[in-house]
Amino acid sequence: MSEPTRPPINAVTTPAGYRAGGVACGIKASGQPDLALLVSDRPAAAAAVFTRSQSKAEPLLVDQEQLRDPHIQAVIVNSGNANCATGAQGLADARTMLGLAAERAGCAVDLAFVSSTGIIGHFLPMDRVREGAAEVTLSAEGGGDFARAILTTDGFMKEALATFEAGGATYTLGGCAKGAGMIHPNLDGANMDGPHMGAPAGERHATMLAYLTTDADIEPGLLQERLQYAVDRSFNMISVDGDTSTSDTVLILANGAAGGTPLTAADRDGVAAFDAALRSVCESLAIDIARGGEGATKLLAITVQGAADRDAAVAVARTVSTSVLLKAALSKGDPNWGRVVMAAGNAGVPFDRAMLRVWLGDRLLYADGGSTGIAPADAAQAVAGDTVRIRIDLGQGDAEATAWGCDLTEEYVRFNADYVT
Amino acid sequence: MSEPTRPPINAVTTPAGYRAGGVACGIKASGQPDLALLVSDRPAAAAAVFTRSQSKAEPLLVDQEQLRDPHIQAVIVNSGNANCATGAQGLADARTMLGLAAERAGCAVDLAFVSSTGIIGHFLPMDRVREGAAEVTLSAEGGGDFARAILTTDGFMKEALATFEAGGATYTLGGCAKGAGMIHPNLDGANMDGPHMGAPAGERHATMLAYLTTDADIEPGLLQERLQYAVDRSFNMISVDGDTSTSDTVLILANGAAGGTPLTAADRDGVAAFDAALRSVCESLAIDIARGGEGATKLLAITVQGAADRDAAVAVARTVSTSVLLKAALSKGDPNWGRVVMAAGNAGVPFDRAMLRVWLGDRLLYADGGSTGIAPADAAQAVAGDTVRIRIDLGQGDAEATAWGCDLTEEYVRFNADYVT
Repeated sequence: MSEPTRPPINAVTTPAGYRAGGVACGIKASGQPDLALLVSDRPAAAAAVFTRSQSKAEPLLVDQEQLRDPHIQAVIVNSGNANCATGAQGLADARTMLGLAAERAGCAVDLAFVSSTGIIGHFLPMDRVREGAAEVTLSAEGGGDFARAILTTDGFMKEALATFEAGGATYTLGGCAKGAGMIHPNLDGANMDGPHMGAPAGERHATMLAYLTTDADIEPGLLQERLQYAVDRSFNMISVDGDTSTSDTVLILANGAAGGTPLTAADRDGVAAFDAALRSVCESLAIDIARGGEGATKLLAITVQGAADRDAAVAVARTVSTSVLLKAALSKGDPNWGRVVMAAGNAGVPFDRAMLRVWLGDRLLYADGGSTGIAPADAAQAVAGDTVRIRIDLGQGDAEATAWGCDLTEEYVRFNADYVT
Repeated sequence: MSEPTRPPINAVTTPAGYRAGGVACGIKASGQPDLALLVSDRPAAAAAVFTRSQSKAEPLLVDQEQLRDPHIQAVIVNSGNANCATGAQGLADARTMLGLAAERAGCAVDLAFVSSTGIIGHFLPMDRVREGAAEVTLSAEGGGDFARAILTTDGFMKEALATFEAGGATYTLGGCAKGAGMIHPNLDGANMDGPHMGAPAGERHATMLAYLTTDADIEPGLLQERLQYAVDRSFNMISVDGDTSTSDTVLILANGAAGGTPLTAADRDGVAAFDAALRSVCESLAIDIARGGEGATKLLAITVQGAADRDAAVAVARTVSTSVLLKAALSKGDPNWGRVVMAAGNAGVPFDRAMLRVWLGDRLLYADGGSTGIAPADAAQAVAGDTVRIRIDLGQGDAEATAWGCDLTEEYVRFNADYVT
């Protein structure tokens, strides 16, 4: 993986009332930044979704307790060590990190949130974490440093911004994320009382983490509902390798620092505007994660339309996005639409293949049960770029969904095989 | 893929009353054998299971019609061309092949069965198929030639034999199979009226095919029931790449040539003896397919025990067997049990990770929610061989299931990426 190259846009500190920063405190042997802090100048309404995995990491278990009162003012994240399969010591270390974050924010520990990503099965070097937490410079220009310090095997920084209007006021929404490998999110906010059972060990742990901030004042229940809706159409629709991580987390904070009236479900236009901003930021970050998958050279965007319902469209799009044979074919630019039809047939969704149509880019390659006869050289043009668009029409109804993935290269296998526990 | 190296054992012609053979008729540019015939000296009770894919190939659609009377006497198989996405012409060619088989067997066309595997989207060279069908030498020693001629990218021949006793008589059961890639069978006999919609094109098509013969006399309904039971515990538990093919087919013939009384469900001991023989042959062939996966260097055998029910055990075992991250780690001998626990957590099966235990070989590496502290060098011994045994105990009940897979290597990606439509 190359070093992150994108210029920072300080997304999470662009909304009013947020400060952030990041430092290298020595958790990573590489000396790269590995500790990040994000604070709000006041308690913020908070909502989060966590992996549905049965194997949740210790920090997620602590966060699920923290969110029983859905307000957060301080977020601390370390990379380089996932604090996973660390049992009672790991839970204690996660709670110590909550205290360090609250101390820097000058808030109660109840208002803190913690994430860790990296190697599993090792205790955190808490002395370094303490030093780092004290050293982080918090500023309204620190969003880029925060976004940089949460990365592990990522090839580039992932940030996004949007604005929206509600109740006559304009608000800002910012976000950043990290991804790379072990990416097949299955995020849910309904499992706040999930099993508290530690997490797997021996794993380099390239989870997905995302942090979203807005200066609007949004009621927590509404925030949770809209976050799940947006996540189901963004992070929950990406896949790098089909392996869902044990630490996947998305957190959103709404601190109301821009003033204005609180956004409630009654303000339909305001909610719609917020939805659009949230969806655009989540989609941008999710697509960056798919494009930045380990070893990836191409982004795959798979849109399934003409489905009987959205669940059917999602099932077909997700199944095609994880086909190892299709991902391998596309890595060398083979316009192998046969593997698209093969994969579509395995989603457990009945369809009439006489009605099925498959496009690569703008070329219709499959219709009426067979090839449309487009020359391979012409079809190859449709998959030659660094983004491959696949469109599948099931010919059944009006529902559609889009999934994003990436190609499968020898580099992915080398990268994940050569890593030794 | 290397050339097949195992010596033939003529499995499908070892039971009484069967003759078979294979020739190179020129379908494969390589000049390797590509046309196979199997005939019984009398009509045989027949049962078959086909892929659950929505994208069934033309020959399967013809066979589903043939089996409305479940008796077969002649089987013709070509490799090198899957006769897929060939529409009306493909259906006509498949029926012509039924006629060629019936002619060689001296039976009615209603008693013939046809399979094709290889390139998709090309019409069969029927002149060569006709010549080949006429040239094949049928003999009781031709089982190996049949098994050889059905192969595509397989590295070796796959044959197996067993005997069983029922009603005081001894019977023989033989089988052969081909596999290699696009292997994640999902076979079912309950879809005889599946959609007739052609099949995907543009695909090198390394499907799984298996043919079983016995000289016992078994009622077709019983034969279908016991075949599905055995397939659910063998072929339906293997995966090479998680991609289910459009042509997967398993056929069994019971011709009664060894005499004795017909086997019925009332003869519980006889059925149990037949089950044991059928299971052993299907398991042997299925494991050979997993071990012989494209690019594979290791066979993975994943046993899940302590499950609440068999469906839960199957879900966890299948999910672990398809984890790209785990398969990549094992290709270089990394005893990465963390990826086993990660994958097990994604099967949609709830479990208490405090009760979960994971073994690699005979080493217990995960228990009580964390590492058992076995040294990596010691753990590495457990995955050093060409067969890696993984055992997972969910600590919930008495149900268990075993899935088989293979490691993921750069060669698999190279092989499937460099293939061009």
